[in-house]
Amino acid sequence: MSAPERGFAQAEFHARTRRAQDLMRRADLSALLLTTEPEIRYYTGFLTRFWESPTRPWFVVVPADAAPVAVIPAIGAHLMAQTWIRDIRTWAAPDYTDDGIGLLAETLAQFVPARGAIGLADELESHVRMPLANLEHLRREIGTRRIVGDRGITATARLCKSDAEIAKIRHAADIADRAFDRVGEICAPGTPLSTVFRRFQMLCLDEGADWVPYLAGAAAPGGYGDVISPATDVPVAEGDVLMLDTGVIWDGYFCDFDRNFAIGDPGQAVLSAHRQLIDATAAAFETARPGQTMADLFHAMAPILGLGSGGGRLGHGLGMQLTEGPSIIPADHTELAPGMVLTIEPCVALPDGKIMVHEENIVIRADGPEYLSTPQEREIRRLC
Amino acid sequence: MSAPERGFAQAEFHARTRRAQDLMRRADLSALLLTTEPEIRYYTGFLTRFWESPTRPWFVVVPADAAPVAVIPAIGAHLMAQTWIRDIRTWAAPDYTDDGIGLLAETLAQFVPARGAIGLADELESHVRMPLANLEHLRREIGTRRIVGDRGITATARLCKSDAEIAKIRHAADIADRAFDRVGEICAPGTPLSTVFRRFQMLCLDEGADWVPYLAGAAAPGGYGDVISPATDVPVAEGDVLMLDTGVIWDGYFCDFDRNFAIGDPGQAVLSAHRQLIDATAAAFETARPGQTMADLFHAMAPILGLGSGGGRLGHGLGMQLTEGPSIIPADHTELAPGMVLTIEPCVALPDGKIMVHEENIVIRADGPEYLSTPQEREIRRLC
Repeated sequence: MSAPERGFAQAEFHARTRRAQDLMRRADLSALLLTTEPEIRYYTGFLTRFWESPTRPWFVVVPADAAPVAVIPAIGAHLMAQTWIRDIRTWAAPDYTDDGIGLLAETLAQFVPARGAIGLADELESHVRMPLANLEHLRREIGTRRIVGDRGITATARLCKSDAEIAKIRHAADIADRAFDRVGEICAPGTPLSTVFRRFQMLCLDEGADWVPYLAGAAAPGGYGDVISPATDVPVAEGDVLMLDTGVIWDGYFCDFDRNFAIGDPGQAVLSAHRQLIDATAAAFETARPGQTMADLFHAMAPILGLGSGGGRLGHGLGMQLTEGPSIIPADHTELAPGMVLTIEPCVALPDGKIMVHEENIVIRADGPEYLSTPQEREIRRLC
Repeated sequence: MSAPERGFAQAEFHARTRRAQDLMRRADLSALLLTTEPEIRYYTGFLTRFWESPTRPWFVVVPADAAPVAVIPAIGAHLMAQTWIRDIRTWAAPDYTDDGIGLLAETLAQFVPARGAIGLADELESHVRMPLANLEHLRREIGTRRIVGDRGITATARLCKSDAEIAKIRHAADIADRAFDRVGEICAPGTPLSTVFRRFQMLCLDEGADWVPYLAGAAAPGGYGDVISPATDVPVAEGDVLMLDTGVIWDGYFCDFDRNFAIGDPGQAVLSAHRQLIDATAAAFETARPGQTMADLFHAMAPILGLGSGGGRLGHGLGMQLTEGPSIIPADHTELAPGMVLTIEPCVALPDGKIMVHEENIVIRADGPEYLSTPQEREIRRLC
């Protein structure tokens, strides 16, 4: 399977920036201040695993009327210079006296008028990745300029993916699909679940993943207790249902889906739950056309799963992050639009407080949905 | 190599909590509010890769006079119930009306008197992992109670590791050591660097890593441009120096070190730079005794590396995170104490703006330092 090209044409970053700038002007924001990995990467293309280190804050300022400016630790200057960003300002972080705040305030003062507003992401699924005391310090430094919410400008811009983004997500999904097809190579009754997890990540890498940021799952008879657990060393046993839920990265884009496997005979309840999950997935898929809402996807699945209006989130956006907005919950009235990439993730309750989940990845097109992962059969896969 | 036991004795969580509570009472804090993965895991043992999903905030309240209380999304209740935490309060996140803030405010009101102070991490290397608007909402909900800085209580408590923590870090380092010993299996002239990265992560998993959260590096002649880049598809070539810097996880604890490899003849400048790096590492190691400071480690290395007082951070704390405080910089006067785990990470400049780095992991003991990674020879390793 040939991989898409890495990176993006510069025009794509220009378009992302211009779209945000239009929204900023309409919202009376003189600049956006970005502090998190996906926000910064969205506008700049800056891709590194160094965000794993919490030591240093990173800033990008997107002025309403000028190209983005990176205000970053010196350790990142060489890599940032390989992006389209030309204005890169650095300091020697960590600096215990002033960890970039003076330089950032000076940069903001250059682009934001004295009574101007600076938008900082402050809503659902966001956080500010800098010490809170430094944010307060920044507020003092910028004088009469104000830091306000970013009106969800970046989150909204990221909802609909470009074809180049979709190609990367599809490639990540292809990799995970092939890894799931090889689970029989690494798992048999008696294999500790922790070994299955390690070997499954090796399969993902072998199939072409750049890295494997997420793997959760379980193996137990009659369903599992949750969907976020790391592996124990308990061996997989006859009668278990094994669930693996993975997010693999290719060129900075995620897939996120799971597969269930029966180890021997899982019993009627599991067989029937799996059919329910697949039927619910299919019902959501059929509903997933432009103009329908996230809530509509929830309501397409709920009766098949025996849910009322509760039942948790049954899917979500997907792209540069393992999970993104919007959410498949009754309260989310976001209209589906072409380019949205979603997970459909129904959950069904089983006896003894157990559950089962299933997950597929889709993209919304003008004429309907397309699967990015390979949709599964109603009958659960069997490993032996 | 037999692995240490997973998890911790409950007594260790009690001790961590009591130590924090002593400091809280001295600082006149009625509770700590925790929002990030390492903070929450430190007191509870809650270990999951689900933090990769930014959707939901998670909270733990550590009252000055009671056991910690988890205030978390319902999706985490089953896993949290497997820790020592008994008071687990949940909401159905994401909730667009109130994403846990009402429940959190109610919990704080139960443990914090009307004019009491709640400590929230706000200093270097910290951030608040919740939407900023929700933090403002929380401040309104808690009435006359105040949210203030946590005085670095958790960060300070985490500086010195227990023997059980050190055993996990050593185990992670052993895994990476063995993977580095096998780089010759996966890399030869002509292998694309991205393939080397994928295969190296597979080696780490094969040797026992639970997962591989960090890998950066480069391959180039005469040194490399930075130490945080992801892999390109450019093939490794004769004359390159290959650097791989990895952080692997075992049971939630990191190692973090790198290795340099010569592909064929790397030239005198690289050979000599590698010797400088090893000499600097040895000088820092000799200095690393209780009572010396982080700055002392910097000054032990700087003359060997030809650095003045600048030159970036030459090492850092290590444990539940890839990088933790304190930092090996001239401004850091933290005294070394038994149980501190550090990386020693000298950097040397080469012609044409290139650099080389080397890194080892050590633990400070009462009678001096111990290597956790295997210290390298002055002569760079050769792959062919």
